[in-house]
Amino acid sequence: MKCGSSFTRRRFIAMATAATVLPTGDFALGQSRAPTLDPDWADAGIVATRHSPYAKLKPVPVRAVTITPGFWSKRRQTNVESSIPSMRVELMEHGRMDNFLRLEGKSAAPQKGPVYSDSDIYKWVEAVGFALQSGPLPGLRASTDEMIGQVAAAQEPGGYLNTYFVESKRGDRMLPKTQTGGHELYCIGHLLQGGIAYYRATGDPTLLNAGVRFVDDFLLPGYGPAANQGPIVAGHPEIEMALIELYRTTGNRRYLELAGYILQGDPRIPLQERQIVYMFCGAPFTSRTKLEGHAVRAMYACCGATDYYLETGDPAYWKTLNRLWEDLAEHQLYVTGGVGARSDGEAFGNAYELPNETAYGESCAAIGNMMWNWRMLAASGDAKFTDVMERALYNGINSGMSLDGKLYCYRNPLAFDPSSGDKIRNPWYDTTCCPPNLERTFAALPGYFYSTSAEGVYVHFYDNSELQWQLDNGAKLAIKQTTQYPWEGTVHLAVTPASPEEFTLFVRIPGWSKRNTVKVNGSPVAGVTAGEYLPIKRRWSAGDAVELSFDMQPQAVHANLAVTDDRGRIAFERGPIVYCMEQLDQAVAAADAADFPRYTAQLTEATATVYQPELLEGVVVLEHPGALLPAEPGSLYQATLPSTEAAHPTTLRLIPYYAWSNRQLSAMQVWIPYRQG
Amino acid sequence: MKCGSSFTRRRFIAMATAATVLPTGDFALGQSRAPTLDPDWADAGIVATRHSPYAKLKPVPVRAVTITPGFWSKRRQTNVESSIPSMRVELMEHGRMDNFLRLEGKSAAPQKGPVYSDSDIYKWVEAVGFALQSGPLPGLRASTDEMIGQVAAAQEPGGYLNTYFVESKRGDRMLPKTQTGGHELYCIGHLLQGGIAYYRATGDPTLLNAGVRFVDDFLLPGYGPAANQGPIVAGHPEIEMALIELYRTTGNRRYLELAGYILQGDPRIPLQERQIVYMFCGAPFTSRTKLEGHAVRAMYACCGATDYYLETGDPAYWKTLNRLWEDLAEHQLYVTGGVGARSDGEAFGNAYELPNETAYGESCAAIGNMMWNWRMLAASGDAKFTDVMERALYNGINSGMSLDGKLYCYRNPLAFDPSSGDKIRNPWYDTTCCPPNLERTFAALPGYFYSTSAEGVYVHFYDNSELQWQLDNGAKLAIKQTTQYPWEGTVHLAVTPASPEEFTLFVRIPGWSKRNTVKVNGSPVAGVTAGEYLPIKRRWSAGDAVELSFDMQPQAVHANLAVTDDRGRIAFERGPIVYCMEQLDQAVAAADAADFPRYTAQLTEATATVYQPELLEGVVVLEHPGALLPAEPGSLYQATLPSTEAAHPTTLRLIPYYAWSNRQLSAMQVWIPYRQG
Repeated sequence: MKCGSSFTRRRFIAMATAATVLPTGDFALGQSRAPTLDPDWADAGIVATRHSPYAKLKPVPVRAVTITPGFWSKRRQTNVESSIPSMRVELMEHGRMDNFLRLEGKSAAPQKGPVYSDSDIYKWVEAVGFALQSGPLPGLRASTDEMIGQVAAAQEPGGYLNTYFVESKRGDRMLPKTQTGGHELYCIGHLLQGGIAYYRATGDPTLLNAGVRFVDDFLLPGYGPAANQGPIVAGHPEIEMALIELYRTTGNRRYLELAGYILQGDPRIPLQERQIVYMFCGAPFTSRTKLEGHAVRAMYACCGATDYYLETGDPAYWKTLNRLWEDLAEHQLYVTGGVGARSDGEAFGNAYELPNETAYGESCAAIGNMMWNWRMLAASGDAKFTDVMERALYNGINSGMSLDGKLYCYRNPLAFDPSSGDKIRNPWYDTTCCPPNLERTFAALPGYFYSTSAEGVYVHFYDNSELQWQLDNGAKLAIKQTTQYPWEGTVHLAVTPASPEEFTLFVRIPGWSKRNTVKVNGSPVAGVTAGEYLPIKRRWSAGDAVELSFDMQPQAVHANLAVTDDRGRIAFERGPIVYCMEQLDQAVAAADAADFPRYTAQLTEATATVYQPELLEGVVVLEHPGALLPAEPGSLYQATLPSTEAAHPTTLRLIPYYAWSNRQLSAMQVWIPYRQG
Repeated sequence: MKCGSSFTRRRFIAMATAATVLPTGDFALGQSRAPTLDPDWADAGIVATRHSPYAKLKPVPVRAVTITPGFWSKRRQTNVESSIPSMRVELMEHGRMDNFLRLEGKSAAPQKGPVYSDSDIYKWVEAVGFALQSGPLPGLRASTDEMIGQVAAAQEPGGYLNTYFVESKRGDRMLPKTQTGGHELYCIGHLLQGGIAYYRATGDPTLLNAGVRFVDDFLLPGYGPAANQGPIVAGHPEIEMALIELYRTTGNRRYLELAGYILQGDPRIPLQERQIVYMFCGAPFTSRTKLEGHAVRAMYACCGATDYYLETGDPAYWKTLNRLWEDLAEHQLYVTGGVGARSDGEAFGNAYELPNETAYGESCAAIGNMMWNWRMLAASGDAKFTDVMERALYNGINSGMSLDGKLYCYRNPLAFDPSSGDKIRNPWYDTTCCPPNLERTFAALPGYFYSTSAEGVYVHFYDNSELQWQLDNGAKLAIKQTTQYPWEGTVHLAVTPASPEEFTLFVRIPGWSKRNTVKVNGSPVAGVTAGEYLPIKRRWSAGDAVELSFDMQPQAVHANLAVTDDRGRIAFERGPIVYCMEQLDQAVAAADAADFPRYTAQLTEATATVYQPELLEGVVVLEHPGALLPAEPGSLYQATLPSTEAAHPTTLRLIPYYAWSNRQLSAMQVWIPYRQG
């Protein structure tokens, strides 16, 4: 553990161990310019709920967990060595930094990119911030410091900072139409998140201070509920969770209050019903009854609302959040963990509207889904939220970045016809929200593995890794995971408290695992239940060994019959991995794209698994008996079904969905028609 | 036969009985203002190919066929008594005539409606024109004459006529951007079609003359291939078929030549590839290899191109048209005869991309499909084109108008969830292209029943009706149809030549009919083949009786396996009628919309038919064994399929697709999942 080892040398302020009182002003700022920032910046988690009165779980900082060689290590290495640096080049080449430099007289280039382009810089800086929390990257640090300096230099004396609403567009600032469609506050939200992540990595508050100046000097004086303030609407939710994280970082309760006001919806901004649906803001959050509208907006709004609940405990919020979560899990969630069925409006569809080929499943929306469930987990300690996070992370998020880390998906469909002309994976999008979002997620990954609570420590995710952290009482604790997860179902945990200590180890039993055993020092533990955290309360000592064994039998999954698009089809899962078929893996030669829907899986349990270390950086391939039905060229409708006798028996080869489209464009499907027998 | 009885009193000029030479200038116009119009206006068919050298079939005028009480009579009565009058009120109330009156100083209302709003007036006048061909309608005639006068009064001295590109937009006339997106020529095309239909009904050339003035005084002098002419592109194809019909009406070959030039694509208009795809014009028609882009544009372009072939015999056109038709029939045709899979761009999708719930299937596109196949049939006499017409007419077109004639579909999807909020049927659309298009189609319907050829007479469609017409040699002929088609499969034809005459009666054997018998005076005729015209050559005398018997056994139809959205599903057809399930007809109580996909049809032949005279103005209902699978609330994905034992056996009740959504909004599906046994 290269970086996190310094935590023992830092002072840990137990400022609110049983904090039901909000830490108002504990390290709050009265004036801007020099905010009192959290001195324990290095100990904060991805979402710093350690003092949040309604957080059941406390986060573990990214730096406290080192992911060692295994499933995620390659992805994370690629992220730092390839994705983040190459995205910096793309951002530069597409003029996203010139937008700032022009305002400082250092560039003659015209404004480039859509109205929300500043946010891409900030989200990229956030990715660097999380990456730096796992260890020093001197070159990246230096170039990011330079960019941050250039961003800060573009800030106006009054605190305003946005490279789009300048010059001839200056007069549009914060107009109602700009608030609904101009992404000013969305950009500032990402600035704050980027500044906070960078501060927590380096202690350097330059970018964070710029965000504080915007909020303190421009936003708070001008916008809010008072008669002398202007109306405010998020437009694209993001500012809510950013303001609450800023509250957690500074202790200034005004940020939380403004977030609450935005979540409540300012009645002074005239909105049409369709805007309230699409933007998922502008009306009281607690009036929402279902997920609808723009999927990323909805997920980010839910993140902000959960953050608000974690700080305030408002029961109306908790009720709404759980109702929306049930809508997610029962009606809106792709089997890959992606969300957002419709390209039109990048939006949620109706209940059970989950088309495959036209699925939008934006990478950002899947990430937003994971971010929201992380907050719900912090509030509840309920493993159902972790199950959704794992589904999204291993599948609909992991699919969003190519294995070489240089290409990104905006859409993550569950079926694909290459004749559509869609390239799926691209190095750059003019709206490049997804690439840095993926980068910040993979960089932050260690911070999702564990939490602590008053009772002990929670283990959420499994991969080779080392935790060096402490219990809530300050007792030091190390946990080392050794596993081949997700390819194999056995996980060894070496639990090493600094001295013998009684506490509860909560180990997550995944919801997908039907048969499970948990042993402590070789003795089985009773009460193991899939989809729950198994509490193991005992006096732990150095050398204690926990062995988890999950069920890795491949499973054929059926969708609810109400999902029209999956009727008569099955999807294969093994462990947390959702599978798909690519045409190029099938035994039948020269089948063209239009032939792909002719495959049929036999509805049997006979699925073979083969680990192929050379394929797609090492994956378990599933082989399942099936058939290829005969082609019927020239006939669109006919009275007879192709006979089963004419079917050509074959073995269907399936690869993990996340790895699709990493070799060549090829037809793909997750949901495979089946026949009995 | 009230109206057509006068045809015997009019002079019929056999001007080109074996016309391989184009009738250039036969009744051509040299100067505008007083065009020499076809004196035999009353004898022209819907598409006047009687002198077209490459037309195998000659049309029969609308007035020569009287549809008597039966399947279509109620629809046609409603069309004339309800739809056409109520649409006139809608057009007036939405300012579509004020647009003309303002230019005459008779209205102070501002311009109303989209850029193509004039075309809705013209298409409505065309509907009146066809209606008047079936008999006098004095009130409608008088109000239409008044509207036509107001339209003509808005024409500028230079021939220009468009109510959108006036005043401040005058400078945009015929700019390249206006030609591609402004619908100027589209509007004039509809003016010409409306003027021609009205002229053929009444002999009144007022509206037609306005169109001729536009073409002669404004369009021909200014636009075309010559160096002193400006470039030209259709933008929305329509002008091509209108110019060729104008050529047929006036004999002025310059109209045909201009249509040919437009079909060829003017290289002087700079177009992007996506525009050429979307507009289905602007590049040589003969370079097309598949249907793509905006479906109505593509269908209208194919109509114009077929018209061009019918006049010129250009083999490259015929080759392209047949290639596109194969693409239609093999890859792009909904089972309802609708076309255009995608709402995005109102466009054709990829091959086999035929989604059901999101199907666009615009009423105008289905009508364009029928119009195109009518022209292909004229060129070839091949019954495969009539099969497509019948499929579209009885299903995807007939669905477009409510049974009461006052509500219209823009989209005609093949599955529907009322929770989507879509009302499907509406009295008015701001883009109201479909309603008058449906009205002109139903008004013109008698003209589609028969054709003549050098060998005799073709019977295309079946319904109670009386033909009073003549063979190509001038011999008078009457045919009376007596049938319960499409509810029953027996059709009696009473063939009554004025005097005994040898000729061939070509009776269409529908492609869907598996077992057929044809008898003449009680004696079976050999060689009956489904999907072909059966030629019965004999000496016919008054009193001859032909009896046709078609197979009305309900059929379960499978789509090609390549149609992902229909995999594992069947659709029911009986005769030409395609069926659907509406939730409100099902025996299961209180099933909500989300339950609808749980129905499963048994894959057996046991389908019962019940004629219900009180239901939906009289329909045959199908009853088929099926089951309702159990609901699984709360579970989106699970490892086990609902067991067959848990299925609730039921009888699925199906109604004709055309009649859906005529009672209350209810879930609907055409393609029903099935199970074997």
